[in-house]
Amino acid sequence: MTAERIVIVGADAAGMSAAHHALRTAGANGRELAVTVLDKGRHTSYSACGIPYWMAGDVGSGDDLVARTAEQHRAAGIDLRLGVEATGVDLAGRTVTTSVGEKHEFDQLVIASGARPIVPEWALDGDGTAYDRVGAVHTLEDGSAWLGRFESAGQGAHVVIVGGGYVGIEVAEAALRRGFGVTMLTRSRVMSSLEPEMSDRIALAMCDAGAEVVLDAEVTGLDLDDDGQVVGVHWAGGSRPCDLVVLAVGVLPSTEFLAGSGIPVGPKGALKPDGRGLVTERVWAAGDCCDYVRRITGDRAYRPLGTHANKLGRALGENLAGGRLTFDGILETAITRFSGGGQYVEIARTGLSRADAEAAAFDPVAVVTEGTTTSGYFPDAEPLALWVMADRVTRRLLGVQVVGGHGAGKRIDAAAAVLWAGGTVDDLAWMDLSYAPPFSSAWEVLQIAARRVGERI
Amino acid sequence: MTAERIVIVGADAAGMSAAHHALRTAGANGRELAVTVLDKGRHTSYSACGIPYWMAGDVGSGDDLVARTAEQHRAAGIDLRLGVEATGVDLAGRTVTTSVGEKHEFDQLVIASGARPIVPEWALDGDGTAYDRVGAVHTLEDGSAWLGRFESAGQGAHVVIVGGGYVGIEVAEAALRRGFGVTMLTRSRVMSSLEPEMSDRIALAMCDAGAEVVLDAEVTGLDLDDDGQVVGVHWAGGSRPCDLVVLAVGVLPSTEFLAGSGIPVGPKGALKPDGRGLVTERVWAAGDCCDYVRRITGDRAYRPLGTHANKLGRALGENLAGGRLTFDGILETAITRFSGGGQYVEIARTGLSRADAEAAAFDPVAVVTEGTTTSGYFPDAEPLALWVMADRVTRRLLGVQVVGGHGAGKRIDAAAAVLWAGGTVDDLAWMDLSYAPPFSSAWEVLQIAARRVGERI
Repeated sequence: MTAERIVIVGADAAGMSAAHHALRTAGANGRELAVTVLDKGRHTSYSACGIPYWMAGDVGSGDDLVARTAEQHRAAGIDLRLGVEATGVDLAGRTVTTSVGEKHEFDQLVIASGARPIVPEWALDGDGTAYDRVGAVHTLEDGSAWLGRFESAGQGAHVVIVGGGYVGIEVAEAALRRGFGVTMLTRSRVMSSLEPEMSDRIALAMCDAGAEVVLDAEVTGLDLDDDGQVVGVHWAGGSRPCDLVVLAVGVLPSTEFLAGSGIPVGPKGALKPDGRGLVTERVWAAGDCCDYVRRITGDRAYRPLGTHANKLGRALGENLAGGRLTFDGILETAITRFSGGGQYVEIARTGLSRADAEAAAFDPVAVVTEGTTTSGYFPDAEPLALWVMADRVTRRLLGVQVVGGHGAGKRIDAAAAVLWAGGTVDDLAWMDLSYAPPFSSAWEVLQIAARRVGERI
Repeated sequence: MTAERIVIVGADAAGMSAAHHALRTAGANGRELAVTVLDKGRHTSYSACGIPYWMAGDVGSGDDLVARTAEQHRAAGIDLRLGVEATGVDLAGRTVTTSVGEKHEFDQLVIASGARPIVPEWALDGDGTAYDRVGAVHTLEDGSAWLGRFESAGQGAHVVIVGGGYVGIEVAEAALRRGFGVTMLTRSRVMSSLEPEMSDRIALAMCDAGAEVVLDAEVTGLDLDDDGQVVGVHWAGGSRPCDLVVLAVGVLPSTEFLAGSGIPVGPKGALKPDGRGLVTERVWAAGDCCDYVRRITGDRAYRPLGTHANKLGRALGENLAGGRLTFDGILETAITRFSGGGQYVEIARTGLSRADAEAAAFDPVAVVTEGTTTSGYFPDAEPLALWVMADRVTRRLLGVQVVGGHGAGKRIDAAAAVLWAGGTVDDLAWMDLSYAPPFSSAWEVLQIAARRVGERI
């Protein structure tokens, strides 16, 4: 029996999940696989989501973020090649070419090449590299570079964060907790994946924490001193002297190496795996290089998150080796927090935004409800606000967002479970959720909020 | 138009929800109601669940536990009679007789008379009243009495808690935090509504907190001093000197006054309302005097909880006045915590126990999974254990239990939502739940646990 040759491009969550589960499933099914994984970086299987907390000092070292080392992967029988970048794919010839001049033949190809941070033109010097004191927060190397920049900048330094999404919020927390001044510049709002009435609450908490938040600020360029070092940022309508500039304006799929291969990608480069992980014959994909089917609308969206990478990576790994797992779409569930300057808010969302719902021809009804994380009389009670949206015609729950104190954020999971099942706002309002004074009001606030929406339909 | 006469027996969560929502719905429907509420006690609409936290000192006063005062209810147009006990019902004559000699005529009767704590024979003196230093934790008067007993007992006193359920755990927390010695005596296990492997973890946390926990201890009597004051408790196999004895051995429906009325009750006195709240023609019921349909099995169980009282009370109130709300059963979801002596565990359950599942002819597969409340590398990570059970034939999720640190307990709501929808263990394993390092591991532990059960089916 000749082993089936699996080549995986990318050694992070999706790729390594696929590798391990392919081997495990093949073993169980009596099949033989030879799994080779190529990655241009030096690290495997690390938590990119943890980097802001490493920058904040919550996590002691970058090593703590590594779930499994290269040695551990190799011990499982994976031929892992680090520092090797895939440069092209010949689909007819079934080969991947690499930066070190090797060709790898495959029977099945898994693309798990992840994403790369967007670096705006204005952040690049004449050579096309980012300025010294400017950078994204994406890899362990980025995290390490930021710790170095924080150290060099010293007390009293000012950090400008360009972008108000998850990474922006989390880096703002890190910078504030390190004692730096913080300015956040956002092109529209803070956390624009939430409704305006929710994102306002986050912006307010950041301001109360001592951060400067500038909305609708499209950066036009950097200010440099005589040595060519960044000393400020300017945008249409303002400018801000600063020492460091964090780029947190999103990521794009790392799929340039597929150009000309005939493997189909979307306009921004995203691969489009089906629920099994298959893109086209012999080609599979998972992780941040992909977009995913949105369960509620059936269309696709680019939502690069580690949870999806882990899930689809695992499913496709099993499917490669005869398994039958399906990844049944995403709800766009996400969570983060902002903790700094005496402020603490948890932030979470699931399902559609109002604009999404309207675009999908739903007739959305949405209400914001204020409540508390525990019974109101309990000493730990903190405020929270819930945005709940349902369809007027079918009463189907469409989306939930929450901003509030300790315990607010993870409430989103109960709402996500209702969305997953296609349930109504009445299901959420009347189902049997848990109650005790340290955990909720007697009517759980999710249920009050759902009931209020139901009453307006 | 003559107003329809509604008489409600019981002025706590179920009764007052029914009263307000009947009036509100009648108003919206152009109907006229005259609502009279009778209650033998002196308080309305208070959080009985909050009493242990008042005893612990978390809540400053009993008044804080009162959601709405008698004055507020009366201002809403409710004829509220406190200190008036219903003593009988004449269904044919449509009257309720009371302890003050009045009769109240009704067109519709709502029974929301709640429950009374079980007081074992051994706790009663020759006159049939409980000894001075012995009592239950049920009403605001009980809470006040306990604060007095705590004060009198003073430093170094020892509290024996008889019963290891929710109230027992919560009072143990209160007593430990007040600086008392604590012994818990349980007839079987601590939190016997959880599986043994979960309840063991709770018992261990209590022992680590400095409490003495005696399992399988059936109390046989009290020890009295020469003045007839309690100075100890004895049981088959042991005894313990003590100053105070808390009775936390459960409650029974307060429906004795229905004897001979022809209104059907179960063997222990529980009324059996349907989903609308109707027991029999003209007679409705909600709250702790009722049992409820268990959504998974379709049979009924006595689970006196404020959340059910609020929900069915509200639904029946609307239905009384022309509304159409249905209370679609319970999942036996419940949550509490134990916090004291340097220990902190959150405890929650939903769905069936293994014994329940077997009794209902499911073929249960259950696994305990250990995980963390946040990403493992995060400084706030605390251990948690999840018990997940599914049916071997249908893969349907049947029950989930959790014991763990901060954030463990409310995870139960996502599981409850899956149970509510009749989902499978695969739904729980693969749905899109939230992830960020401060909130969960990259594979949310609920999902790891569900996947592990799924792999064993």
